[in-house]
Amino acid sequence: MYDVIIVGGGPAGITAGIYCQRANLKTVVFEKETIGGQIASSPLVKNFPGFKSISGVELANNFYEQAEELGLPIEIEEVLEIIPGETNKVITDCDSYEARAVIVATGAKYRLLGLPNEENLIGRGISFCTSCDGSFYKGKDVAVIGGANTAVTNALYMSNLCPKVYLIYRGNKLKCEKVLLDSLKEKDNIEIIYNANVKEIIGKDELESIVLDNDRKIDIAGMFISIGMDAQTNLVKDLLPLSEQNYVLSEDCSTIKSSIFVAGDCRHKTIRQLTTAMSDGAVAASFAIKYLENNQ
Amino acid sequence: MYDVIIVGGGPAGITAGIYCQRANLKTVVFEKETIGGQIASSPLVKNFPGFKSISGVELANNFYEQAEELGLPIEIEEVLEIIPGETNKVITDCDSYEARAVIVATGAKYRLLGLPNEENLIGRGISFCTSCDGSFYKGKDVAVIGGANTAVTNALYMSNLCPKVYLIYRGNKLKCEKVLLDSLKEKDNIEIIYNANVKEIIGKDELESIVLDNDRKIDIAGMFISIGMDAQTNLVKDLLPLSEQNYVLSEDCSTIKSSIFVAGDCRHKTIRQLTTAMSDGAVAASFAIKYLENNQ
Repeated sequence: MYDVIIVGGGPAGITAGIYCQRANLKTVVFEKETIGGQIASSPLVKNFPGFKSISGVELANNFYEQAEELGLPIEIEEVLEIIPGETNKVITDCDSYEARAVIVATGAKYRLLGLPNEENLIGRGISFCTSCDGSFYKGKDVAVIGGANTAVTNALYMSNLCPKVYLIYRGNKLKCEKVLLDSLKEKDNIEIIYNANVKEIIGKDELESIVLDNDRKIDIAGMFISIGMDAQTNLVKDLLPLSEQNYVLSEDCSTIKSSIFVAGDCRHKTIRQLTTAMSDGAVAASFAIKYLENNQ
Repeated sequence: MYDVIIVGGGPAGITAGIYCQRANLKTVVFEKETIGGQIASSPLVKNFPGFKSISGVELANNFYEQAEELGLPIEIEEVLEIIPGETNKVITDCDSYEARAVIVATGAKYRLLGLPNEENLIGRGISFCTSCDGSFYKGKDVAVIGGANTAVTNALYMSNLCPKVYLIYRGNKLKCEKVLLDSLKEKDNIEIIYNANVKEIIGKDELESIVLDNDRKIDIAGMFISIGMDAQTNLVKDLLPLSEQNYVLSEDCSTIKSSIFVAGDCRHKTIRQLTTAMSDGAVAASFAIKYLENNQ
């Protein structure tokens, strides 16, 4: 019987694990793929205070070593089901476990265009987050793909850094807030290209250009794909209330189940960053520690 | 004219500064005392994901170098007044400045007992935060000073790590939630000492024992002073709504003034940790960036 089972070994899950383990709770983290989660695939992290510059792999490795030193086990197992009860049952692809509390930190994944060469160039011209990677493209031309709030916000952000920003949208009318539309009008370095899809991504070691389905070729150093994220919340869809976009609804990392907590990108919130994920991990763990204390 | 002035150079302020600077905004951080804020006085940080172990001074130095590399100025000036307006006027002990947006990250300070030898032993036996430093005292006897929710929560936390925990309270009845009282009753290793104050702290390089005002001497390796924090919010007390405990009321780092944001320990919230402060910094900066974009 575990005190706490943490589902997901990204920044939120690892932080929660560190807090629970240091509180002397019997804790395990189950991760189905990669320790570090999405951040592990980031070639260069420069907006994480404390490190001038660190690769995602290095950061993930730090997480692993830190967990190891604390005696926090991280198991590569996929959690398939959580059955809540007086003690929660957690079924993985390997075994079945019991835990007095569960922290769900299953993350979210950026949507891709689904083109050849796309995954290959992530971090080498293709990016998703302007506040993470935008400044790497200062002084260079970039494209933003999408037409909703995030895409327009990203285009505006990049317009302060780049001579030219192409905002490429498959529809004929942007789907963003009016205030963002007004801001767009003030910008003479954003070119909006409507009714267009990217059909080809060109570049070997680095992104060089893209070709649209109207055959226009655009040379760019960076492309921000801003067509949404997929919350990785299938596991809890019948257990916890989800937002329209499938994020777990929770104001403060607690949930409608008193022994189940939620942390990180899979939670409904405004800003998804390394720091906000870790913060969630610390908060969810603190609540779980308090819950266990009060329910001996 | 600055785009953003950040008041406070702790983890929240520095994180906000990193985000604003990387967004190409003209940014400055004003810090009145120590870069790094409260964390700078922590001898050992072990609950910050990414570092197995780092001293507060080293972490603060990392913040400084990171800011310098980004070209983010951190000025040692005390902000004396913020006059809101179409552009905000920020008056320091050196000069007066204008900023389109202001982020208030002035922090909070732990209350001390006011005894000789106390400040000297902070980080060498005297501590405030169990989830930060509790595990350093695993297997050793400790005392917790205080009688409200935080003190009792800290005593419960430490009771899972230590053979004996003394909960020392000046009153004759604990002022905490009933559920915490119930949990206390389950613990046979917490001794509650009522109607007592610490009158002497003994130890040269490390805490060795304390003497109470009833002349009882108690040998301990650690003492958690849990008598509250003082929000450093005097600067904004006539500007922003404060909680009863003088923290700035804000659900999401925005405030009633559209161009003023709040981040870190000075904000009303449940959990005050390095990670939650940085998260606030990232969120406040993201909102400030969006605000500036929409109010050119």
